[in-house]
Amino acid sequence: MASQAAIPVVVNGAGGKMGREVVKAVAAADDMSLVAAVDRSPDLQGQDIGELAGCGELEVPIVNDLQAALVLSTQERGTPVMVDFTHPDSVYDNVRTAIAYGVRPVVGTTGLSAEEIQDLAEFADKASTGAAIIPNFSIGMVLLQQAAVRASQYFDHVEILELHHNQKADAPSGTAIQTAQLLAELGKSYNPARVNETEKMPGARGTCTSEGIRIHSIRLPGLIAHQEVIFGAPGELYTLRHDTSDRACYMPGVLLTIRKVLPLKSLVYGLEKLL
Amino acid sequence: MASQAAIPVVVNGAGGKMGREVVKAVAAADDMSLVAAVDRSPDLQGQDIGELAGCGELEVPIVNDLQAALVLSTQERGTPVMVDFTHPDSVYDNVRTAIAYGVRPVVGTTGLSAEEIQDLAEFADKASTGAAIIPNFSIGMVLLQQAAVRASQYFDHVEILELHHNQKADAPSGTAIQTAQLLAELGKSYNPARVNETEKMPGARGTCTSEGIRIHSIRLPGLIAHQEVIFGAPGELYTLRHDTSDRACYMPGVLLTIRKVLPLKSLVYGLEKLL
Amino acid sequence: MASQAAIPVVVNGAGGKMGREVVKAVAAADDMSLVAAVDRSPDLQGQDIGELAGCGELEVPIVNDLQAALVLSTQERGTPVMVDFTHPDSVYDNVRTAIAYGVRPVVGTTGLSAEEIQDLAEFADKASTGAAIIPNFSIGMVLLQQAAVRASQYFDHVEILELHHNQKADAPSGTAIQTAQLLAELGKSYNPARVNETEKMPGARGTCTSEGIRIHSIRLPGLIAHQEVIFGAPGELYTLRHDTSDRACYMPGVLLTIRKVLPLKSLVYGLEKLL
Amino acid sequence: MASQAAIPVVVNGAGGKMGREVVKAVAAADDMSLVAAVDRSPDLQGQDIGELAGCGELEVPIVNDLQAALVLSTQERGTPVMVDFTHPDSVYDNVRTAIAYGVRPVVGTTGLSAEEIQDLAEFADKASTGAAIIPNFSIGMVLLQQAAVRASQYFDHVEILELHHNQKADAPSGTAIQTAQLLAELGKSYNPARVNETEKMPGARGTCTSEGIRIHSIRLPGLIAHQEVIFGAPGELYTLRHDTSDRACYMPGVLLTIRKVLPLKSLVYGLEKLL
Repeated sequence: MASQAAIPVVVNGAGGKMGREVVKAVAAADDMSLVAAVDRSPDLQGQDIGELAGCGELEVPIVNDLQAALVLSTQERGTPVMVDFTHPDSVYDNVRTAIAYGVRPVVGTTGLSAEEIQDLAEFADKASTGAAIIPNFSIGMVLLQQAAVRASQYFDHVEILELHHNQKADAPSGTAIQTAQLLAELGKSYNPARVNETEKMPGARGTCTSEGIRIHSIRLPGLIAHQEVIFGAPGELYTLRHDTSDRACYMPGVLLTIRKVLPLKSLVYGLEKLL
Repeated sequence: MASQAAIPVVVNGAGGKMGREVVKAVAAADDMSLVAAVDRSPDLQGQDIGELAGCGELEVPIVNDLQAALVLSTQERGTPVMVDFTHPDSVYDNVRTAIAYGVRPVVGTTGLSAEEIQDLAEFADKASTGAAIIPNFSIGMVLLQQAAVRASQYFDHVEILELHHNQKADAPSGTAIQTAQLLAELGKSYNPARVNETEKMPGARGTCTSEGIRIHSIRLPGLIAHQEVIFGAPGELYTLRHDTSDRACYMPGVLLTIRKVLPLKSLVYGLEKLL
Repeated sequence: MASQAAIPVVVNGAGGKMGREVVKAVAAADDMSLVAAVDRSPDLQGQDIGELAGCGELEVPIVNDLQAALVLSTQERGTPVMVDFTHPDSVYDNVRTAIAYGVRPVVGTTGLSAEEIQDLAEFADKASTGAAIIPNFSIGMVLLQQAAVRASQYFDHVEILELHHNQKADAPSGTAIQTAQLLAELGKSYNPARVNETEKMPGARGTCTSEGIRIHSIRLPGLIAHQEVIFGAPGELYTLRHDTSDRACYMPGVLLTIRKVLPLKSLVYGLEKLL
Repeated sequence: MASQAAIPVVVNGAGGKMGREVVKAVAAADDMSLVAAVDRSPDLQGQDIGELAGCGELEVPIVNDLQAALVLSTQERGTPVMVDFTHPDSVYDNVRTAIAYGVRPVVGTTGLSAEEIQDLAEFADKASTGAAIIPNFSIGMVLLQQAAVRASQYFDHVEILELHHNQKADAPSGTAIQTAQLLAELGKSYNPARVNETEKMPGARGTCTSEGIRIHSIRLPGLIAHQEVIFGAPGELYTLRHDTSDRACYMPGVLLTIRKVLPLKSLVYGLEKLL
């Protein structure tokens, strides 16, 4: 049960896979209170979101009007935080609406363009309202990337492996590319050659960024989502690995963002800004 | 100390890295007796091979005449087994010499052509003399490859990783290619696609054999020599891994071959034939 | 769609987690046809098992009378195989009933005592009816255990790690204990000491079987079910690892057993007998 | 070849395993110059340290008088840094001697008591001379421990595995214990139980610190020195692993310390203070 001073939370896109996971996490958090659940799906209207999410009745029926939900929640429970896991084509409007009502948005929905994000940042600035756009809510992945950046100051050799189920179409994974970019930002070149390498079979050595970082993508049924960054030096390996098997892994990052967005007066992008 | 009935062993190429390792292993084996050490290096002549190998004096001086050593050993200690770790340009003659004197050769030297091997096999047959040519003395690697072949009957998805120090010039490793060939011999295709894969960066998905087996080669200082075969199926992974860090790992295979070559009447190729 | 000669399959306990997984697997198998779904749960009666299992309507309603289902299936579709994932207190009777009607049972339900298994084996013998009791349907785990037994002929040093989620109460896992027992059956002692070991903190070196095999149990949220058998020798490691993340991994073993039980005339225990 | 402004380095204990490794590393460093090599072993006196270390003649003969070497080096090449890999019973005097002559000591020798370290710190303070006592020169291990401490702010569940060759007598390793202590300094308890665990075989769950951190020690031939820290949360694992296979891995830490000790005016303990 949430205390008097619990943070009111509105979940937008509450009926989706991530939305339901957020509902469960907020309902279980001592310092939060789920005050509204918004979802546009016609066949979910009026259902209790707790029962849908599988955490027992919460006496919060699913509604389809975000604006009305924000207004009502603010009146009855105080200004809420809005968590948004909806669709690329509605997320921009959702965030503008929230900020217009003084509601702090926490956005996990993908698909915002760089201009839209810039625009929302300016809007939040003017309104002095905190907001958070978080492409990846995994605290573990941010920790891995930060540890990798730190290690890259001391190691000149590094390769990245990412391993996913064989339903993933693109390679390398976006997260692996992002990790390589973070390592590249130090401005150094990696993996200076000691010998003239020859690939007897093309592609054996993986792909290579312009900074010399190798990335290898493994795809197999039975894999879920895994990333490994291996640093090497004479006589030594330092390996960072992150495995995810369930979207529950994103909930600590969602809850942390809800708490941290409260005192903010502007928009932040990326979970690493909040750790 | 070796017993009366110990197997007499002559090491050819005794002063080299592998030769010295074999000397140590034979000296420590209860059922073997090192009877001669042959090496052509002028500056090693007459040195005690035990002291050179770092296992204490063995009262076996290094000599440079293989033929004389084989004759003398046979007269004084009985027909020996000859272990050969020499050079590609002398190994063929060494093996012919051994067989001509009824000595069973155990050959770790690389570089024999297919015709030379065929020729030696016929020579051994005529002489009814056992002989063993072993490209890889690692029992662990043979076990891995046999387990992989067995698993490939039940798994349709497999990728191979091989990881080596960054002084290795060629990729993939010969052993990884050989493992893929063994899996290919079942005559099936691997890794049927579930989605249309796209490589956003070329080479990310590694190299691919004509049977669909992916191989990824990682090169870093700090790595030594490692191979991993990962089989996947829905909800399940089965991984076989072999790590080698010291050429001591080949000695159980050398000793096993010395013992198994004794009753043979013809030439065998590959450690897997003897396990 | 199953062919004319498809194997008729009755799933007993069809509404349970494993039962529904079996329904999906049988429905997707070209050479099998789901002919009846039995489950005692009152609220499932009459529901289409395909819809419950999430693989689309199969026009097979759930019924609660096993005997009637076996008789009707036999009359209309030929003698079926019965897959049983029910409860410890009903499995013995289910198997006797199946055999009495000439139906081959494939049993994944746990809880049969050694005497009950012996009794059912005699009953199957008299009836000349094949039957299979399979405590673990994972082909991958059987392959791992067989590869481990083979490796134990050549390696004297081995430790077992098993890693599970932190809701697992007992340690070590039953499968790890079973793996150690299989290694013990060779009659040798493992891990002869090279030094006098001291545990500065009790339990650091894990538990130890009477044959000297060490087992280490790791428990963390985020882990699912993993087993690793590490063999060591000077300069070399040979590691076998099995990871399971979804009960789908048992289905290849279930389907294989359905196919292999058909020509049998007696009871077999353990998937390893069928590979 | 070192430049005019190269840091002069005296290696004390130059004939030992670590000493020779330091000689090679210093000789290869552009910004350092090996000016003296001290070792007490009578049979090494006068030998060229470069030839002994295997990096070619350096024209630096081994001498046995540390004090004379420090004085002469200072006169001819400027005040040197002294790297000390000697013995527990001489290290205290060596460090005092160095500081007395204004030479900055970099100490890898173990065995100094807490009081001796305190005493040397006061001595260095009074002399306004930098000094560094470094129990573990591995930068990779310090990075791992720092990343682990950071992760422990966000993860409540963690277990430590350390894997070493079977000639290591004590378990757990000192480094694993130290890692657990660093995690404990946050003042939190780890691994809150979700179920009532039972060890069917004693020790299976490893050892447990008073803060609830589990440590598991694996010992096998073929292992060298490895540490793994696994953090878990629902749906997620974050793993840090460090593998060392050669004492070359300590040299980047030694060179870094030589460079960082120069501007210091007091004693520092631990490599983590210098990163």
